[in-house]
Amino acid sequence: MPEPTVRWVGGLDGRMEIIDQTLLPLEFKVVPCRTVEEVWEAVRTLRVRGAPAIGVAAAMGVVVAVQAAPDDEAEVLRAVGRAADYLATSRPTAVNLFWALDRMRRTAEQARGRGGRALKETLLAEARAIRDEDADMCRRIGDHGQHLVTEGCGVLTHCNAGSLATAEYGTALAPLYRAHERGRRFRVWADETRPLLQGARLTMWELQQAGIDCTLLCDSMAAAVMREGRIHLVLVGADRIAANGDMANKIGTYGVAVLARHHGVPFYVAAPSSTFDLDLDSGDAIPIEQRGAEEVTCGFGRPTAPPGCAVYNPAFDVTPAELIAGLLTERGLIERPDRARIAAVLGRAERA
Amino acid sequence: MPEPTVRWVGGLDGRMEIIDQTLLPLEFKVVPCRTVEEVWEAVRTLRVRGAPAIGVAAAMGVVVAVQAAPDDEAEVLRAVGRAADYLATSRPTAVNLFWALDRMRRTAEQARGRGGRALKETLLAEARAIRDEDADMCRRIGDHGQHLVTEGCGVLTHCNAGSLATAEYGTALAPLYRAHERGRRFRVWADETRPLLQGARLTMWELQQAGIDCTLLCDSMAAAVMREGRIHLVLVGADRIAANGDMANKIGTYGVAVLARHHGVPFYVAAPSSTFDLDLDSGDAIPIEQRGAEEVTCGFGRPTAPPGCAVYNPAFDVTPAELIAGLLTERGLIERPDRARIAAVLGRAERA
Repeated sequence: MPEPTVRWVGGLDGRMEIIDQTLLPLEFKVVPCRTVEEVWEAVRTLRVRGAPAIGVAAAMGVVVAVQAAPDDEAEVLRAVGRAADYLATSRPTAVNLFWALDRMRRTAEQARGRGGRALKETLLAEARAIRDEDADMCRRIGDHGQHLVTEGCGVLTHCNAGSLATAEYGTALAPLYRAHERGRRFRVWADETRPLLQGARLTMWELQQAGIDCTLLCDSMAAAVMREGRIHLVLVGADRIAANGDMANKIGTYGVAVLARHHGVPFYVAAPSSTFDLDLDSGDAIPIEQRGAEEVTCGFGRPTAPPGCAVYNPAFDVTPAELIAGLLTERGLIERPDRARIAAVLGRAERA
Repeated sequence: MPEPTVRWVGGLDGRMEIIDQTLLPLEFKVVPCRTVEEVWEAVRTLRVRGAPAIGVAAAMGVVVAVQAAPDDEAEVLRAVGRAADYLATSRPTAVNLFWALDRMRRTAEQARGRGGRALKETLLAEARAIRDEDADMCRRIGDHGQHLVTEGCGVLTHCNAGSLATAEYGTALAPLYRAHERGRRFRVWADETRPLLQGARLTMWELQQAGIDCTLLCDSMAAAVMREGRIHLVLVGADRIAANGDMANKIGTYGVAVLARHHGVPFYVAAPSSTFDLDLDSGDAIPIEQRGAEEVTCGFGRPTAPPGCAVYNPAFDVTPAELIAGLLTERGLIERPDRARIAAVLGRAERA
């Protein structure tokens, strides 16, 4: 397992650190986030990315903000509100961001009356709890999904939903790590994932570190490998899942789901319950982030398209529930997901 | 229309010139091919690419070879044989290469007895004829296909099967140029086409030059645009078409065909009859070129994957005939292609 992608070092006078994922795989560098602006910038520019990791980073970002505030309770509460509002503008699609910020706001409200210093300590403890719970959820997702990764099978994944995207183990990659720990042999095919190449840069790097057999391919090659019969399972993460099971994930995921259906390959989505947004009726309501043209036209260090050309660059797409064989959550596997099955699993746990 | 991608300047003491497509879109440069080795290298490294253009380049490459031979007929014939054998090793998938070289060999055999100098003149005339016929075929493909490009429609294309890939107009892009000449308005969506970005670098460049509305997208985004209902037609080229209608084209084409079927979008393939290889029973028999890992891991000036990682990099994939709405050839449109319909159209013309 690589080092944690986001962490808090020390106590309230300590600091937030992240692996700068934009430098991987050429350079492994842990950098501090000293101000809430630095946290915002790290999320915006994908130094830290992956829906669960963004949630953890946002929670720690609130702690960074209150570190700088006086110990006066009203000041701390104001700092929480300002930081949460600001960090919520960093990226629009992953719901874990808003979920974590709401949780930090609620925690602050509930701790009101204990004084500014105690409030700060409570917020740090809550951010750490979000991180630890995420690690625990990833382990449980892995345990619920490891049986899908059978001896000798081929698994396709898209983007990076691994340990770099979460507190530990990852979501989509968690079943792979757990199967690998059991000594099972299998081959992972990693879509490079244009435009930002998270598959090539991050998934290949972390699977290589873990000693898991993995092969890199361009996104456009997945169809050919499926036709050759070499893929038996698709595992991807999610940035937001609606009440009916439609889900948003990295651009290209929907195409992989269509290809999987055409080739009779089961398509599984792994995500903690914080990724579900049951207020959204369907995937049509998920806001899709549009990113700059230069990610497509100048992604590799030099221009690769004519100047001024029109570019389409959505960061995510929506895969309808009907293409999903199962949703792997920390609460278990939701097979053939629909509104009722999702409510049953998430509802039950919410009462627990 | 941009300048010819391959041309012969002057007479037998003239020279072969190509647009160096590896420099586009940043630099437009016409470079000479002075030796048969330079022609081989230009084809191998994709300075000249696109199945029909490779055929024209190979034919002119034979002329470059005989230029250097003495005017003795036996020497010229030997030079033709050596050059054809050698150039045939440059790339394995596009059948137009072998078709053009066989035609040059046959021409040399048939001109035997007229003396070395006349033989050289005959070979130059034949290479020019191959070029002119290709231009004529592209125009006719465009005329047979322009009715598919209706007012206001959205057209997706993959790789570059435009004027840069042929003597003129292109194959897949020919219907677009012909519809544009008729004043019809439509929007082209160009897959960037990893790993070598022929869509971003070449298709975007030539459509921009022609004043056709075009938008660049990553290959992984085509599915989302189709789901949004913005694509009404897919037009692609082909590198080899088997007797049953299965066809090989740039890697990623097969995935586009599957996506088009899923979304009810008609998928058309445009290619001259020289692209058909009726000796091959089905697409399973088409040899698929595997290219170096560095095209995927270090394509644009800096490494984007961990050192030493395993890479899958086929240059082509095979699309089965059942996914193809029609084959556009210079002899007409073969709808719902199968063995009988292909034989009927190509057989009829062969007797003509």
